[in-house]
Amino acid sequence: MDNSSLKPQQPLPTNRPKIVILRWGHRVARDVRLTTHVALTARALCASGFILADTTDSHIEETVTKITKAWGGDFHFEMGTSWKHAVRDWKNQGGIIVHLTAYGENIQTSDVIPRIRATGKDVMLLVGSQKVPGEFYSEEVSDFNVAVGNQPHSECSALAIFLDRYFEGKELGQPFEKAKITIVPKERGKEVKTSGESEAPRKKSFIPP
Amino acid sequence: MDNSSLKPQQPLPTNRPKIVILRWGHRVARDVRLTTHVALTARALCASGFILADTTDSHIEETVTKITKAWGGDFHFEMGTSWKHAVRDWKNQGGIIVHLTAYGENIQTSDVIPRIRATGKDVMLLVGSQKVPGEFYSEEVSDFNVAVGNQPHSECSALAIFLDRYFEGKELGQPFEKAKITIVPKERGKEVKTSGESEAPRKKSFIPP
Repeated sequence: MDNSSLKPQQPLPTNRPKIVILRWGHRVARDVRLTTHVALTARALCASGFILADTTDSHIEETVTKITKAWGGDFHFEMGTSWKHAVRDWKNQGGIIVHLTAYGENIQTSDVIPRIRATGKDVMLLVGSQKVPGEFYSEEVSDFNVAVGNQPHSECSALAIFLDRYFEGKELGQPFEKAKITIVPKERGKEVKTSGESEAPRKKSFIPP
Repeated sequence: MDNSSLKPQQPLPTNRPKIVILRWGHRVARDVRLTTHVALTARALCASGFILADTTDSHIEETVTKITKAWGGDFHFEMGTSWKHAVRDWKNQGGIIVHLTAYGENIQTSDVIPRIRATGKDVMLLVGSQKVPGEFYSEEVSDFNVAVGNQPHSECSALAIFLDRYFEGKELGQPFEKAKITIVPKERGKEVKTSGESEAPRKKSFIPP
């Protein structure tokens, strides 16, 4: 690409608050692809980790682990943890809970993102798949209820826009450490750099189509 | 919610360029939920329409039509159109083609969004599901290849962030005309207004969980 069009990179501070996604209500088989997209969005947009609550799904774990190994970065993945325990432990460690819901404060028309940022605290993001328990909206669970618009659409899109706004866009320009595969962005065609290590995965399925 | 935290609404101009999504490579059954999320994201974030190319899927049509009827706005849905014809017709009518791909110019580190906006032209957004034909990257098809970050994640997330940046966030604060259901955003709980028409749908499945 034409380098003159490149904007200066703004690195995310390494001591930034952590964001971890808690995926609630995942249904094995039915939700496997959507939940995988949610987890990969979290990783690609510089969240620190992903918890698949109250159930396990080895397909998702396998995909996320392989992508992280090939494309770099540190991304924590866990599954089977009870959502109640995860929320309680997060709060006990001083973190806050943000619930993504179409009913919450509008991310565009309210000042909810600056208020979340101003806490300076680590954020656990609750991302539901099916109808969530009513207590998610209560002070016992959530510190903020955030709506990425008040129209029905997709938890995957909502998560992406939340992270993009929280990190002010910088997350999309970050290099990923220890990457074995890196894309060289360009106007046309595909260019990929591999780290040259002999164990660099060349399996096509882990390179975007 | 506390009204003091509301920011002034910035309406999108009604004479803005149109954005229409062309979904390529949809596989019936396997992709039904993801493609539905892509279509609903397009609608919720003020795209003008959605074309399911080269195939049909009545589940998706039904969901999108019902959501639009209940939640308002004008959103064009069509399916079965050949992608080649759709692209050719779009270009013949003076529109440009933008291909969303992890290999393209990075939306954060390049000036690709301002360059697209500067054309002032209607945009057809190519959103693939599986590996796309190589010609998507060529000048014969795409005017721009845009990467929402250069990491693998989700076409649903990529579309959401593209629209959010193209419309500078204003799309998430827009009212939808002729809505029978409207959410009243709030800090806690759920509040929904219905238009009071007797035909207002009350089916739970069309209210977000």
